Amino acid sequence: MKCRICKGKAEIYLPQYNLALCREHYIEFFLRRVKKAVKDFKMFSREDRILVAVSGGKDSLSLWDALHSLGYNTAGFFLDLGINGHSARSRERVEKFAEERGLPLKIEELERVFGMTLPEITKRLREPACKLCGRLKRYYMEQAAKDYDVIATGHNMDDEVAFLMGNVFNWKEEYLAHQSPVLPAEHGFSRKVKPLIYLSERETAAYAFMRGIDYYDERCPLSRGATSIFYKNIMRQMELGMMGIRFRFLKGFYSIQDRFKSEDRETPSPCKVCGYPTTAGGLCSVCRMKIRLGLLPEDLLEDSSGKG
Amino acid sequence: MKCRICKGKAEIYLPQYNLALCREHYIEFFLRRVKKAVKDFKMFSREDRILVAVSGGKDSLSLWDALHSLGYNTAGFFLDLGINGHSARSRERVEKFAEERGLPLKIEELERVFGMTLPEITKRLREPACKLCGRLKRYYMEQAAKDYDVIATGHNMDDEVAFLMGNVFNWKEEYLAHQSPVLPAEHGFSRKVKPLIYLSERETAAYAFMRGIDYYDERCPLSRGATSIFYKNIMRQMELGMMGIRFRFLKGFYSIQDRFKSEDRETPSPCKVCGYPTTAGGLCSVCRMKIRLGLLPEDLLEDSSGKG
Repeated sequence: MKCRICKGKAEIYLPQYNLALCREHYIEFFLRRVKKAVKDFKMFSREDRILVAVSGGKDSLSLWDALHSLGYNTAGFFLDLGINGHSARSRERVEKFAEERGLPLKIEELERVFGMTLPEITKRLREPACKLCGRLKRYYMEQAAKDYDVIATGHNMDDEVAFLMGNVFNWKEEYLAHQSPVLPAEHGFSRKVKPLIYLSERETAAYAFMRGIDYYDERCPLSRGATSIFYKNIMRQMELGMMGIRFRFLKGFYSIQDRFKSEDRETPSPCKVCGYPTTAGGLCSVCRMKIRLGLLPEDLLEDSSGKG
Repeated sequence: MKCRICKGKAEIYLPQYNLALCREHYIEFFLRRVKKAVKDFKMFSREDRILVAVSGGKDSLSLWDALHSLGYNTAGFFLDLGINGHSARSRERVEKFAEERGLPLKIEELERVFGMTLPEITKRLREPACKLCGRLKRYYMEQAAKDYDVIATGHNMDDEVAFLMGNVFNWKEEYLAHQSPVLPAEHGFSRKVKPLIYLSERETAAYAFMRGIDYYDERCPLSRGATSIFYKNIMRQMELGMMGIRFRFLKGFYSIQDRFKSEDRETPSPCKVCGYPTTAGGLCSVCRMKIRLGLLPEDLLEDSSGKG
């Protein structure tokens, strides 16, 4: 197969565009898709300071690499969750990536800032690791973003579609109202954007490979049975039978999403312990976790109500 | 396994209810689910004359059998599509079913009323057979229903979920607004109901088997590649991984469906040739088909606009 642009040897074929490309022109294609998402959703400008949330995996490192290549002002943020081996190997990749490019990197350790590692928390609270992890990552990412204009995360099209499927099959109206590649800065939350929204998992992996990014490729040992993986597998099968359905489903959703908006959304107020915005009444969910784990005194709960 | 009701030998296990039942109590269960759907959606009463659209397959004959067993006033309607062998064998089953129970049955032949069989129409118009067939069935069912209060069709939960999936994945807002187990009599259309909405394909097949209904079990030779079959296979896999997701998806949809309703729906007006309600402008889609096939004069088109 030949590259459609330069007629050189193609390295990748993209079935939904019926497009074969060589390495150089695939990288161009990828960056164009990122630029298009940034522009379509007015994610940020050249002047903005962007904090890229990185895990060491292909998505977040490809995102950081792409934004840096496109000339944006970026820094990385990595939260070390303390998962045996997994976290250390991820962290090595992130540190190496930042160092090679001379980019600023902030590292936070869950054990230091929260007082416990993720495996310990999961074991003691007996709740799904992915749910707890998402909550903690969002929390510490917000803390780290004080000096930045926007947080960028490496969610790709498959991630977003898997989330949409979960919200649609269970008709989670609140999530359907607010699932978006851009969340505005409001109620004490930072602006959050997903510039890889127009790129599939496969496309992101190909970019990481072609750019020679040394990313960490193991699935998190705590994520077994995650529903996102289930939905991704289902969507992969649907895409095989109905080419383009994944993108049509996602794009179409954004165009009808207003139907799910309601007026009566609760406005968050600051947690009385840490100041993090919360709708859970008085105490945010991370402070509640700390109380349940004996890391904060129990009597803080007494003046608060809500479900945590 | 033992029947939960009578402790006799169970013949079926229903995983989503964790329920094993013998033949007698399964039949009771099935009829209760039909009654519940009829009641929840106020489908019809004992006084109504019900026209059951039957194809000879398990769903429509089980429906007719169940409604008759429950004491409703029913007659059957069968449209002979003229599909080689398939239609004749289906028709035999329907005739035998009606005769054995002494129930009234109306039969119409597409070749006689339309002027051509379905395979001929499909071949000449080069459009998907399922789309043409659905259109023709609805049309001749309406014609047959003049003396009845309501049309009942054998769509089961899987049919309805497959239709919902197609509408959701492609965000067909108009269909999402109106997909329902009950369509009211309005704008010249008859009332239409789907009493098997709470029963899966497997549950309906089990009922047909246990009631000894001699139904026709071959897939229509023209339906190859139908998207409904694709969606059903996907949903079957989802149900294996997430028990109950199918029913949750459908029930949840009905509870949020109002979000898809709009004020600006076009009101149908009678087709100027046959009087059938249409929004296609002047001529209904079946009369347009006839014109394209040379079964009606072409100059009828001249005073009409619309896309057919």
